[in-house]
Order: sequence, then structure tokens, then C-alpha cells
Amino acid sequence: MPIPRIKALALSAAVACTGFAPAALACTSLLYSDANGKFYAGRTMELPMELPYKVSYFPAGTSFGSEADKHHKLDFTARHAFLAVTVPDRVSHDVKVAEGINDQGLSFSLLAYASTEGPTHMVDKTHAILAAIDLGAWVLSQFSTVAKVKEALQEQPVLVTPLLPAGLMKTPFHYTLHDASGKSLVIEFSGGEQNVIDNPLGVMTNGPEFSWHMTNMNNYTHLTNIDQSKLELGGVELAQPDSGIATAGLPASNTSVGRFVRAVFYSQFAEKAKDPAGAITTLSRIMNNFDRPRGITKDNRFRDEIANIMAPGVTHSRVYTSEYTSWTSLMDLQKKHLYLRTYDSVNFIQVDLQALAHVSEVRHVELKDIAHSPLEATSAFAR
Amino acid sequence: MPIPRIKALALSAAVACTGFAPAALACTSLLYSDANGKFYAGRTMELPMELPYKVSYFPAGTSFGSEADKHHKLDFTARHAFLAVTVPDRVSHDVKVAEGINDQGLSFSLLAYASTEGPTHMVDKTHAILAAIDLGAWVLSQFSTVAKVKEALQEQPVLVTPLLPAGLMKTPFHYTLHDASGKSLVIEFSGGEQNVIDNPLGVMTNGPEFSWHMTNMNNYTHLTNIDQSKLELGGVELAQPDSGIATAGLPASNTSVGRFVRAVFYSQFAEKAKDPAGAITTLSRIMNNFDRPRGITKDNRFRDEIANIMAPGVTHSRVYTSEYTSWTSLMDLQKKHLYLRTYDSVNFIQVDLQALAHVSEVRHVELKDIAHSPLEATSAFAR
Amino acid sequence: MPIPRIKALALSAAVACTGFAPAALACTSLLYSDANGKFYAGRTMELPMELPYKVSYFPAGTSFGSEADKHHKLDFTARHAFLAVTVPDRVSHDVKVAEGINDQGLSFSLLAYASTEGPTHMVDKTHAILAAIDLGAWVLSQFSTVAKVKEALQEQPVLVTPLLPAGLMKTPFHYTLHDASGKSLVIEFSGGEQNVIDNPLGVMTNGPEFSWHMTNMNNYTHLTNIDQSKLELGGVELAQPDSGIATAGLPASNTSVGRFVRAVFYSQFAEKAKDPAGAITTLSRIMNNFDRPRGITKDNRFRDEIANIMAPGVTHSRVYTSEYTSWTSLMDLQKKHLYLRTYDSVNFIQVDLQALAHVSEVRHVELKDIAHSPLEATSAFAR
Amino acid sequence: MPIPRIKALALSAAVACTGFAPAALACTSLLYSDANGKFYAGRTMELPMELPYKVSYFPAGTSFGSEADKHHKLDFTARHAFLAVTVPDRVSHDVKVAEGINDQGLSFSLLAYASTEGPTHMVDKTHAILAAIDLGAWVLSQFSTVAKVKEALQEQPVLVTPLLPAGLMKTPFHYTLHDASGKSLVIEFSGGEQNVIDNPLGVMTNGPEFSWHMTNMNNYTHLTNIDQSKLELGGVELAQPDSGIATAGLPASNTSVGRFVRAVFYSQFAEKAKDPAGAITTLSRIMNNFDRPRGITKDNRFRDEIANIMAPGVTHSRVYTSEYTSWTSLMDLQKKHLYLRTYDSVNFIQVDLQALAHVSEVRHVELKDIAHSPLEATSAFAR
Repeated sequence: MPIPRIKALALSAAVACTGFAPAALACTSLLYSDANGKFYAGRTMELPMELPYKVSYFPAGTSFGSEADKHHKLDFTARHAFLAVTVPDRVSHDVKVAEGINDQGLSFSLLAYASTEGPTHMVDKTHAILAAIDLGAWVLSQFSTVAKVKEALQEQPVLVTPLLPAGLMKTPFHYTLHDASGKSLVIEFSGGEQNVIDNPLGVMTNGPEFSWHMTNMNNYTHLTNIDQSKLELGGVELAQPDSGIATAGLPASNTSVGRFVRAVFYSQFAEKAKDPAGAITTLSRIMNNFDRPRGITKDNRFRDEIANIMAPGVTHSRVYTSEYTSWTSLMDLQKKHLYLRTYDSVNFIQVDLQALAHVSEVRHVELKDIAHSPLEATSAFAR
Repeated sequence: MPIPRIKALALSAAVACTGFAPAALACTSLLYSDANGKFYAGRTMELPMELPYKVSYFPAGTSFGSEADKHHKLDFTARHAFLAVTVPDRVSHDVKVAEGINDQGLSFSLLAYASTEGPTHMVDKTHAILAAIDLGAWVLSQFSTVAKVKEALQEQPVLVTPLLPAGLMKTPFHYTLHDASGKSLVIEFSGGEQNVIDNPLGVMTNGPEFSWHMTNMNNYTHLTNIDQSKLELGGVELAQPDSGIATAGLPASNTSVGRFVRAVFYSQFAEKAKDPAGAITTLSRIMNNFDRPRGITKDNRFRDEIANIMAPGVTHSRVYTSEYTSWTSLMDLQKKHLYLRTYDSVNFIQVDLQALAHVSEVRHVELKDIAHSPLEATSAFAR
Repeated sequence: MPIPRIKALALSAAVACTGFAPAALACTSLLYSDANGKFYAGRTMELPMELPYKVSYFPAGTSFGSEADKHHKLDFTARHAFLAVTVPDRVSHDVKVAEGINDQGLSFSLLAYASTEGPTHMVDKTHAILAAIDLGAWVLSQFSTVAKVKEALQEQPVLVTPLLPAGLMKTPFHYTLHDASGKSLVIEFSGGEQNVIDNPLGVMTNGPEFSWHMTNMNNYTHLTNIDQSKLELGGVELAQPDSGIATAGLPASNTSVGRFVRAVFYSQFAEKAKDPAGAITTLSRIMNNFDRPRGITKDNRFRDEIANIMAPGVTHSRVYTSEYTSWTSLMDLQKKHLYLRTYDSVNFIQVDLQALAHVSEVRHVELKDIAHSPLEATSAFAR
Repeated sequence: MPIPRIKALALSAAVACTGFAPAALACTSLLYSDANGKFYAGRTMELPMELPYKVSYFPAGTSFGSEADKHHKLDFTARHAFLAVTVPDRVSHDVKVAEGINDQGLSFSLLAYASTEGPTHMVDKTHAILAAIDLGAWVLSQFSTVAKVKEALQEQPVLVTPLLPAGLMKTPFHYTLHDASGKSLVIEFSGGEQNVIDNPLGVMTNGPEFSWHMTNMNNYTHLTNIDQSKLELGGVELAQPDSGIATAGLPASNTSVGRFVRAVFYSQFAEKAKDPAGAITTLSRIMNNFDRPRGITKDNRFRDEIANIMAPGVTHSRVYTSEYTSWTSLMDLQKKHLYLRTYDSVNFIQVDLQALAHVSEVRHVELKDIAHSPLEATSAFAR
């Protein structure tokens, strides 16, 4: 059976939409471990609009090609099967990976990072170079662990190419990876440098640069999950009548900075579940706290930015002034399960990558087509 | 066909558990309206332990009896069918209503309120008196709107009876009702008074008393859902790179006070959905922000309180030091749909009260038995 | 030597200005104790305008009269000398006490409380009744301790009289007293009741009613003055590089509610000084944290309110949109020293009540005339 | 008259104390402008102990020498007279400048910065090099404006020398300068670089590095000084009864990060005074909000750090676990006035540099000797 060849040409405006502007896309990625030292990754995709997301399956043996400007094209063939949430490139009919997990339990997440600025003096043009937008396909198809990705990036040059013809926008993303052993890595192009940074807390959101967030965590050393519910002051016994005061010190802002701190807190302090089923439900509880309804915050900069950047008529997606959680993913890195919940569904669907081992073709399913309605239980009463 | 008679004797410790202590039970109830002026109610149940919840269906015609101390027993027959989350009384094999919706779209929620103190000088003992713990069954079985409940409470005395034999604990709850026209009511026994209060914002959590919370809302007049993402200061242009700064002023605490303010904010500012399906998914997004994972806050007072109050061996439930969201309910007050999601499930199940119109028997199903696993979608790729 | 008779007629608009309100006047009063159990009181007066404050000395033997509506006039003669910050009544040429200390170390502070509502069914008109606005003169001239004031108020009716002819404004103040033994009392007319309440924490600001604030303190049981500057999370050692993180949980708002919590924190946690000199400097440090510069917060409601309430031309004071600290007082209740600092001075002046024992006349000095410039020290270098 | 020669040898432990550790010293420096475009600088010195501060006057013509390791010594002669708060070096009997203003209205402030790391590859050893600890004397004695300092630093190498013999501590300070035209500059040795950075907001505190704070300001775009005191939500009219809600979004922490944001807010939003006298009182109001009483925050790391770093018996100063505001300075950069208030005084003293023009000798006065008691005003009543 022939393995279809996936082309990766210049991105069309459809993908470009994911990064139109400083304020246009936000995401929260975090890593959770259970009581047995197994790892699970959660992630939200937050945008002020819908994109035509697909859930894509790529078997081992799939061919990929990445073209970065006028450099030699980098061709690669998948060693590992993977499942991903992808966004189609309307010109090339290629898809780009926004989120994914491979059959080794390595995960990849692309998150918005508006200040992207990669190295300008690249290797000579005889080298085959990977376009940053193809990092997802390359990472998931080639490697089994974070350590191996890190090693490979010492050899393989990556170029931050323009997402739009005018060259205005430089693939405004950074990338976070988790593996089944619990290692996390951030790949970030910032200040003209390619930074490949170990991420001991496993959390990533958006700007400012990753190191700024880690410094910021030092402003939260007073955090604890233990309620201090009694205080004697001047002979008066104060008592909080309710539980839950421990979170009083968390930032409430839904910006990247606020979400980073909360994601660390929730992923570290949530109960360590005893088994994978409990771990996934616990992770869903955690991620629910990053579920942003439309309307809760409105940023009027969105429309202007889109008008400035996109040619009219390129997209028919409705643009909201409010950023919201388009979809949430949960991943069991041990069992290679992917769970997805869209904004229009109250429930998660689940896909089991290992159960697809026999499938040797690339498969794409529209995300909206597999997002189900709630589980009907009326019959339990009407038997 | 005989309608089974539901007895309401003194509550056993199993129900008593729901209120053991000042800090033992928290809940968030809120009302959401869509763009068509239809109403939807959401609610969380937060406890440091599991109770043997049932989902119960009561058809019109069901008989109930409420016995309050040595007063005449109040007998009543259901005029309206209703669905409820109930907790069994182990002695009487009766169940008590924690949450419910009737066939008129009236909802009822029991929420913890430790400072409960009802009137002590009641009417003479020749009157039949309703025990406060039976308010749920009475309200849902008898009335169609909040206005009618309010009117009936002017005639019907309600007694706050002890939940435990020693008389130590006085049914430590208050009660919030919503109806299909969007009216909300709070019933609260506080400072020796029975307060029946209109609730224009439709939000209720726990202590302090309802009027304290409403006064507290005046400390949040600066809230808005519009991101103020730019500021010129001394010639410097500050710009928030991300969206979402509007929530910076919300309280982060998970106590009753913090949750009340956030529940007002989320229920008021979330996008008004265009149809019932959108309204329920929007409401689920809102309620997800009140989904408390085990471990996020720990209150060491829980164990002591339970040890103090309960006879050994009365319950076999494991007690956590962490309060968590045992279950979340969503209700479409127009369509009379009830959605439930337990801590052990990532997904909601749905029950349609109107589809049970032909069922004339009381039916109980264990909540844990109808809480399903995620929707399997692997087959979409393995066809 | 004749003691001049101080008349207390209906208040003119000049005093009325102090309460135009709801948002027009804020104050913070607190009590501090040193390591020897001696007590010191601090207080700010916050207004959006200047009033013609006087510093007034009243010797023992001074006669006062209070007239409340059509009730019998209450006449009283000072048993104790006192010092006070006063505001003149332009009609009667009487002055009203805003802040004061007597020769027994009892202090009195009038603070804005817009929701004032006193009892309407008063004693019969044959009784001599004290107008609430004259509480300062009565308390300071008659009593030595908080306990004696409390006892006397059980006998002496107090009437909340209108400050303005139309009867619109009901003396919108509440009152806080401290004595040399460290007892504090709040007198508040609220919901038609006269509440005389022990104040164990010694802090008072403005609305809502005092009991609301005390309940609110239960939301701050997590406060501590111990910096939690290290935290190990997921193997990462976070460390706050600076000291001072302990105050992260304090409210930052300058409203009455925020100031109440901070005043409790500062008065309780500030170092217990070893001697009176150290205590006064420590108290000045504390009060500096409640020193509000003009411009920091602006409330556009001020101008409208004044326009609504005052007859044109009654006052020539400039009205700001910003509330600011007009003056700050410090009192050594043991030594009977009063310190005052106005907005237009960087420094405090000090008045020693005991040193005035020989003065048998009432004396008034304009506050602005005794507020000095900084201490010139150039000569230390130019000798 | 001979001008005494000021020696600048290696610093003894007495100065070293000012920087013993990550958490040992905090400061807030800010710039305020009046309605006429005149500039004023305020600054606090926060430490957990007292140092033997002097107020020092250096006339033009004073000779200085700076010795950095084994480099050539840099000798310089004062072109400008200046006033400074200094700390003596007990070995050399030299003093080091912590804060100062010169006769051109240029100010200099040394602030703790624990992460100091200067360039390691310096110019060859034939150049005369300035030790960073002597920046104050060099800057104030040689230059009239920030622009000239900036220019000179392009030529003059500065070496971050060890403060202690073992070489463990590298002069852990950074430096902020303001001039009479309102320009501000930060000099910071960080990450092996000497950063000389324009400071458009004129605020500096402590770590992390200056650029981190400026990025952090983007998280405060929602700040305003306009009270939003009314909000209509779901038909309910909420109203804040008090003024002052605008500051609700400020950070409450007393760490460097919290103080930076508040210092920007206060210096930018405080009313622009109409004249220098009003400007200095307004600036004093601002700085009062950064006046930290002993006891408010306690950091137990202090004692250990001092024990680790200092030889026993080197200092007899009492070490507190609480950082507090040792002194506060105000400077009128136009009139060249310096105001100082110590922890043990409620009031400021003032020194007029221009009035010392005739003094041609270096003069030192102990800070504690010129810090006065409150202005006695009793006589106004006892005349």
C-alpha cells in the first residue's frame, strides 16, 4: 500500500490565522504525573475564531518534506506513527501539526509566541533546513524522547520562515514537548537565538519568553495548597468558614502570565491519581480550570489585527472579540490515548493510537465531526 | 397503579455527613440566560468525601411526609414530576433532595450554610410543619414557579430540625431556587429568622449569609470583561501581549466568598448563546471554572470534625482533607433536561425529564452507575 | 475667670460638607500597643476638599449644650480637659469635634458612615437628648474610659439629627473611641438601631457597617507577617530574591474595606516598640501606609454630590475629584500627646495636653497655622 | 585651604553588610515631576539593620581615588560639589556613596541587586579602572547630566570588584541616576554585561534585572487612577460606597517586583503640584506609601546569611529579621535640596546644597545626630 506523500509548502493564510497578532492566540500546556510515575499531558487551544481543525493519523513510513525559503528541502520519512490535531494549508493541501502524540509517547504542542525572532545568520544554503512550522511533523515522526529531540536539534538547523508572503510574520510560535518519562522541553526562537530549554515544571503558555516566566515563579514562593483557615489576631479568633482559601494567592488574570502560574499550581498540587483512569479524570478537572468561555474577556484589538494582516475573503471564519478555548486535549503518554473536547461539545472523545497499529494510511477526520453530544442516560429511567 | 409512599423520618448520619461542619461542604449555584431569554442553571457539589448519591425520578402523584420534631407530620402529594440528585437516609430508606428540577422547570439546590439558625418560637403544635430538610421534595413536587413558592412560605411554617439525635447540628443548609422565567429565590435561616429573599443575580454559594455576599459585590464595581490591554504612562506605551487581562480583578480564592463573585462574573459575562445546545455547552464551560480537583486546597479541619460528629463505623466513605467537586449539574429549565458529571468521569450524562412522562413509578439509579467513560472515537480512524 | 459657653446649634453647611457622601469622606482609625502594654491611636482624615480645621483646647469647666430637633437641650460641663481637631459651625460659631483626646487618655474619632440610620422612636420629648454630632464633645468632656461611655449610653438617648435644613442628610458618621487601657468602642447607628460595640481589634474605617468588616476579616486567615520565600515545586527550588512577600495577600484597594484589613494587619504586626518615643515613630510608619496623595484615585461622583447638596456659594473650598489625606493624627494615650500632620506639610507637629493644665480658657488655633515646614538642618554643615 | 583626599580602598565588612545576601537590602527610587516640568527624586533605604550612615558634603576640588583589584588606580577631582548619604569603610576611613545629589541637580542612588555579574574580560591592565562601588563619587563629582554620564561610561571601564576578601560577593548593587531635566538612567551589571539603560519611567527597585521589570509592567495595562465605582450587572446596580477602588489592581507585595509597579503608579498618577513646596509635600506623601515598619514582613533568612558572610564581631549592629525603611530621602533637583527622615524620627530634616557654596571642606555629620524629634507646638496654646 502506498504511503501518501505530505507536502509542506509555504503556509497559506488559513494557518497564518493562528498567529495573526500579538494577542490572537493563547494556549496552556501542562504535564501531570500520577502516583505511579506515569505522565499525562493537557493542553488548551485558545483563539478568537474557529479554524478547520482535523484530527490526523500518520502511520510509520509516511513521507514528509519541509521547505524553508530557498534552502534545500528537508525530506524525512516517519519512523513513528502519530496522532495530531492539524490545520490544513489551503494552497498545498498539506496540514500543519498544532498538537500531537506519537507511538512512543512523545507529545508536541505548538503555542503562540508573538515575539518570535530566530537566528538570521543561518548555515550555508547547501544544507537541508527544517522550517519551524514543520517541527511538529519532524519531532513526532522521528523521535521517541525529549532527549533525542534535543540531541538532533544540535545538528539540524531550523529556520523561522515567514508565514505570509510579505514576510511580515515570522511563524509566531514556540513549542513544548513532553515524553513518557516525564521530561519536557521548550523550543523557542527569541532575540535572534534558538533556545532549546529543559522545562522541569512542564508548563508552557505564551509570551513573554520562557525564562521570564521561570523568573516570575519566584514571586509565588508563598503558594501552598494547605488552607490556613484560622488566625488569632489581637485576641480575636478569626476562622474562615469555608475551605479553599489556599488559592487566594493565585493570579486571576487569564493572560499568559496568570495561566502559567496557575498551571504550575494545578499540575503540581492536584492529587496523584492511583491509576490511568483516575489520572485522566484528574487531568480533565485540572484542564477545566483553563476552559475559557466566549465573552469572559474581550480584546478589541483582534478585529483590527486580522483586517490588517489578512486579505479580504481569505477566511470565512467568524472572528470574535473574545478569546476562548477552541478545544482541550488530554494525552495518556503511556497508553498513547488522545482525548479531545471542542467548544461546541460538553464532552471529550477518545482516540487510541495503539489500536490503529494496523492502519497504514494517513487518515484525516474533521474535528467537528467527531465531537459528540452528551451521553444520553434517560433510558436508565425509562426501561 | 399504586404510588409508593416516601417516608421522611429523622435523618441518619449518612445525610448528616453532608453538613458535618463549618468547612465541610461547598457548592456554587448560578443561573445563565441565552440570547432568547431562556434560562439554564448550573451547580457544583463540593465535599471532602463521597456520599451514596442517587439520581431519582418522582412522578406526579408520589406521596411524601415530613416530620419535624414533635409537630404534626406534614403530608403532601406530588402535583409535579421531578428529577433529583438524592442522598438516602439509611434508617428510613427515605431519600433527601440535594438538587432537582421539576416538570415546570423549577429547580431546587441545597447548599451548605453552617450558621443556620431558624426561628425558635414556632407556631403552635397543632400545625403540620415542614422540616427544612424536606424543602426540596416539597418545593419540587408542589410548585411551578419561584413566586408560588414564596407565596406558600408565608403560610407554611418550616422548622430547622436537628440532623443528629443529640440536636447538635441544625440542618446546616440554605436553599436556592430558579424557575424557567429566570426568577431566583434564596431561603435562609439566619439569626433566628426565616429569610426568603429574591436573588436578582441568581448566584448562591455558602456562608456568610446571603446579604453579606450582596454587600460584598459592591467591592467589585471595577470588574469588566473588556481587556484594557494598552496604557500610556509617562510617554511609555505599555501593551499586554496576550488577551485575558480583564479577569485580573477577580478573587482567586475558592472559598464561598471568592466563588460567589466569580460566579456572578462568569454567569453575567459569558456569551449569550443562540440556542439551547449552545447554551448548555456555554454553561458547561462556565461550570468548568468551578471544577475543583482533589488536592488543590487541603483543610485539615475536616477529619477532626467528622471524628467529633459521627459515631465510629457509621460511614465507610473515605474522607479526604481536600474538598473537591463531587459532581456538577447543568439544567435546561425550558426543556427540563438534567446533565450530571461526577468526579470519576470526564463526561456529562443527560436525562430528559419530559421523556419520562409515561413513567409512573419512583425510580432510583445510583449516580456512579450512570456516569460514563469518555466517548470512544477510535473507530473513526479504524474504519 | 469665666468659662466661655460653647453653643451647639444646628450644623451649618461647613460641617455638613464633611459628610456629603456616599463617597465623600474616608478615614482610617487604629490602635497600636507597645511592648509595655501602653496604647497609641492613629487616624487619617480623607476628604476631596479642605475644611477650615482648628486645633482646639477645652479646659475642664467648659460648658456645652447640644440641641436635637425639638427635644430638650442637653447641657453639660466639662469634667475633663481635651484637645481636638474641630470644624467650625459658621452659623453658631460653635465648633464640632472630629478627633480628640482628653486628659484621661480617652480618644474620640468621627468617621464617615453614609448609611447612618438611627432609631426613629425616641424617648419622650421631656428628656434632654444628645445630638449625635455632639458625641465628641460629650464623650471627651465627661468620661475617662470606654467602659464609662458604654455605661452612660445606656441612659443617655442620642438622636441622629439632620445636618442640613431639608433633613436630607442624617449626620452620616460613626464613632470610634480608644482609651489608655487599650479598650476600643464603636458607636454606629445602623438599620434603625443604636449599636454600641466592643472593638477588640481597635480598627475602624467607613461603610459597610462594622459587623460586616469583622465578618470580612475571616477571609484573611491566611495572612502572616512571615515571608514564605522558598518553595520546592516538582524538584525546582523557587526563591524570592527579596524580602516582603508576606504582604502579597493584603487587599490593595484604598476603599474602606481594603483599608480596614490593612489597618488590622499593620497595627497587629508592627514591631512592639520599647518606649513611647519608639512607639510614636512606629505608629507614624504605620500611618504613612495610609497616606493618600491627591490624584492616586479619582472619583467623579464627588462634584455632583456637592452640587446636589450644598447651596451655591456656601463654601469657597476647592473640591477635588480625588480623595486625599487631609491630615493624620497620632496620639499617645498615656502621655496625652497629640501629633498632627497636614497635607501641606511633610512633618508632624506635637501638642502636649498635660503641659496645658494651667490654661483655663478655650483656645483655637488654625490647623494650617501650626503645620510647619521641614526642619532646617543646613546649618549643621555651614557652622 | 587644603582639600582632604578621600581614599577608596577595598571595602570593609561594614559596607559589605549593605549587600550581604539575596534578601538583605531593598530600596525604592522614583522620579516625580510637578506641573511646571520640574523634577524631584524620592528614595527609600530598606535593610534589616542599621548602618553608621553619615550625611556628607564634598566641595568641588575634592580628590578621590578608586582602586579595582590590581588595575591602575583611577584618580579624579570633583568638578561639582555634592551632598550624599554615605557609609564609612572602617579600614580605610573612606566613605562610600549610597545616595546623593550634586550642585547640577544630578542624583545618584545605589540599590541592592544580588545577581550582579559584570564583564570578566576587561580592558588591559594598563587602563585606570573605576571600581563599581565608587560609581557614586565619580558620577556626582564629575557630571551634570545623565547624558554626560552615559557618554563617559562608553570610555571609562568599570569593574565589579569583590566586596569581601574571599571574593565571594561581587558589589551586589545596581545604580539609578536622575537629572534636573528629568532623564533617568540605570547602570546594571548583569549576565556578564554592563548595561547602561535609559529609564523612561524613572523607577528602580531591586532584582530581577531592570528589563524584567519593564516587561512586567505590560501586565498592568489595566491600571488607572479613575475609580470605577458603579456597575450594572443583570439589572442590579452595584455601587462602591467609598472612593479608592482604583488601586485594587496594584500588587500588595513589598518585594522588589510589587514596589516597582506601585512606584510607577504613584509617581505617574499623583497630582502635579503647582510649586516646589507642593511638589516636595506631594513627593513625601508618595514615599510614605513605601515606608515599611519593622515587623510587617519577617524573613528568617537574614540571620543565617549574615552569620555565613561576616566574621564574628565585625559589626555590633543588631540584626532584625524584618526589613524596614532605615531612611527616606527626597530631593528637589532644581533647588538642590536634600530631605532625610530616619526610622527613629517622625519628621524630615532638610539640607540646602546651594547654601553651602562657601564651604570648601569635606564635612560629615552622623545621620542620627541630625534626625530631629517632632516639631513642638504646645506653646501655641500656652502663650
